[in-house]
Amino acid sequence: VKPFRIIVAGYGTVARALLDMLVTQERHLAEVHDVRLVPVAVVRAAGAWVDPEGLQLDRLAPRALMRKDVAEVLENVQAEALVELTPTDLKTGGVALDHVRSAIAKGLHVVTANKGPVVHAAPELEALAAKKGGSFRYEATVGAAIPLLSLRASLLGDRIERIDGVLNGTSNYILSRMGEEGLGFNEALEEAQGRGYAEADPAADVDGLDAAAKITILANRYLGLGARLEDVRVEGIRKVTGEAVQLAVKQGYVVRLVASASQAAGVTVAPRLVPLASPLNVQGTLNVVRFAREYGGPVSLTGHGAGGRETAAAVLADLLAAAGVAPR
Amino acid sequence: VKPFRIIVAGYGTVARALLDMLVTQERHLAEVHDVRLVPVAVVRAAGAWVDPEGLQLDRLAPRALMRKDVAEVLENVQAEALVELTPTDLKTGGVALDHVRSAIAKGLHVVTANKGPVVHAAPELEALAAKKGGSFRYEATVGAAIPLLSLRASLLGDRIERIDGVLNGTSNYILSRMGEEGLGFNEALEEAQGRGYAEADPAADVDGLDAAAKITILANRYLGLGARLEDVRVEGIRKVTGEAVQLAVKQGYVVRLVASASQAAGVTVAPRLVPLASPLNVQGTLNVVRFAREYGGPVSLTGHGAGGRETAAAVLADLLAAAGVAPR
Repeated sequence: VKPFRIIVAGYGTVARALLDMLVTQERHLAEVHDVRLVPVAVVRAAGAWVDPEGLQLDRLAPRALMRKDVAEVLENVQAEALVELTPTDLKTGGVALDHVRSAIAKGLHVVTANKGPVVHAAPELEALAAKKGGSFRYEATVGAAIPLLSLRASLLGDRIERIDGVLNGTSNYILSRMGEEGLGFNEALEEAQGRGYAEADPAADVDGLDAAAKITILANRYLGLGARLEDVRVEGIRKVTGEAVQLAVKQGYVVRLVASASQAAGVTVAPRLVPLASPLNVQGTLNVVRFAREYGGPVSLTGHGAGGRETAAAVLADLLAAAGVAPR
Repeated sequence: VKPFRIIVAGYGTVARALLDMLVTQERHLAEVHDVRLVPVAVVRAAGAWVDPEGLQLDRLAPRALMRKDVAEVLENVQAEALVELTPTDLKTGGVALDHVRSAIAKGLHVVTANKGPVVHAAPELEALAAKKGGSFRYEATVGAAIPLLSLRASLLGDRIERIDGVLNGTSNYILSRMGEEGLGFNEALEEAQGRGYAEADPAADVDGLDAAAKITILANRYLGLGARLEDVRVEGIRKVTGEAVQLAVKQGYVVRLVASASQAAGVTVAPRLVPLASPLNVQGTLNVVRFAREYGGPVSLTGHGAGGRETAAAVLADLLAAAGVAPR
């Protein structure tokens, strides 16, 4: 079987989970899908591990790191795909955007879990990929292991009327705990930070920017809105009081940070009252998205919207699609 | 644009909804997907409407019916696909199985909403289609407009550990009403019949056979179990008492007819206690399926598992896939 060679940019939780998955799934992928995914380089801040024949993933010693950055590796190492997993910069796209653009310009397939390049340049990058013979895939950027983007192939022929989702697990954990335990926002945030569900600087989550990026990606994919991140009307959850959440619960509702998109109303993120029996009422760190369709009616997908393994699973699915693997 | 010609077998709710959809979506399909789906024959019990150039769907007069059955139409009318929408016979596959087999043998693509041919002969029909250059698609047979089968392309690379679902809307409506209103089984069944959610002979629904057929299809698609309908251990909901449902509610549960499949436990359908906060707790006629995955964790899909428009939407999605339409 011809190897499908991969350069991995980044060495955080998701990259490590992906490398682990490449080892554990190797035999399954070979037997069932006749495909061999071979990591030929892993590039982290301290340098790069490179082996054109395929890295020994259980032997990635720090002393074997070469002083190369992603640009140099892309220049010098033959591969079919770049997996871009460096930290997200929603403001500018960051270095990730440079990595993705360079790889696509070379005709590589690019798979990313990084929202930065997607919200800043998806149309440009997709057009360039089409021209250069590669592809640009980013399933993992929205809802991690919930296949919200590849689902599109399954929804063809019907009109998507609107999209509503709970897309930020941190905010949802906080709002869930406020509802269940009567906590105030600050108490619930501290608890979330203690459990590792919220970062020390929780702004991107609780102020709605992360959810805004995700709903922007969905809106552009499904509704063709051509929306930019700065077009989204965003309200976060900092001003949601414990009293408001308790009052909602008493009346049969929960408060959820709902991201919405439609032709008529554009793209929004705001705390909303959601009926207890609504599919949008998910608990804890879960994510959900509901697509409302003209003929097929609503369809909702629920699952884990974050986590190293979950995100890696979405990256692997994209890599298989890039390698031309289809269900048998 | 080269027409993709369709023969429709059956003229019930789903067939009419599909024909309606072909008219209303015609322009969208041409503009966005560059495809023209042209019905060249509709075959009902009383005869067939045939026009090799494409039927005028707003002028299907009874007097224009020709005395031809599906076999004769397949013999005489050139087409790319058969859409099989005659009534379901779960016991033998019925005439639908003959229709499907003949069409596939001729190299046509076949799309069906009929579980009969699928549970009785899917492996044979898929092998034949692969040999003859057509395809056999049946998204609409499980969960109607919930894309439970085409989702498989989105879940590649991960291991599906088990599948659990609520797949029969009639039973779920009855159990929901028993829980909400304290009705007994017979009262709730009568109400469901009055509202058109249950048939005069509700056996296939309340005895679990319909759910058994659907979970069999999912088990074979995702787990490769090679299960036959008669392998499923099925228990219906006739013996579920109002008292049992009320007791469950008091303890934070609902009773749901849950269809399950795993390598270890095989395929089962039985009433189960489901926690209130579980994604399997869907109300009324909704359907849900949860896939448990090794890496990606659980993902649940919820939507309308029945209805003419919903089923037609799934049939149309399959037709587009058969016609080679992919997301742009």
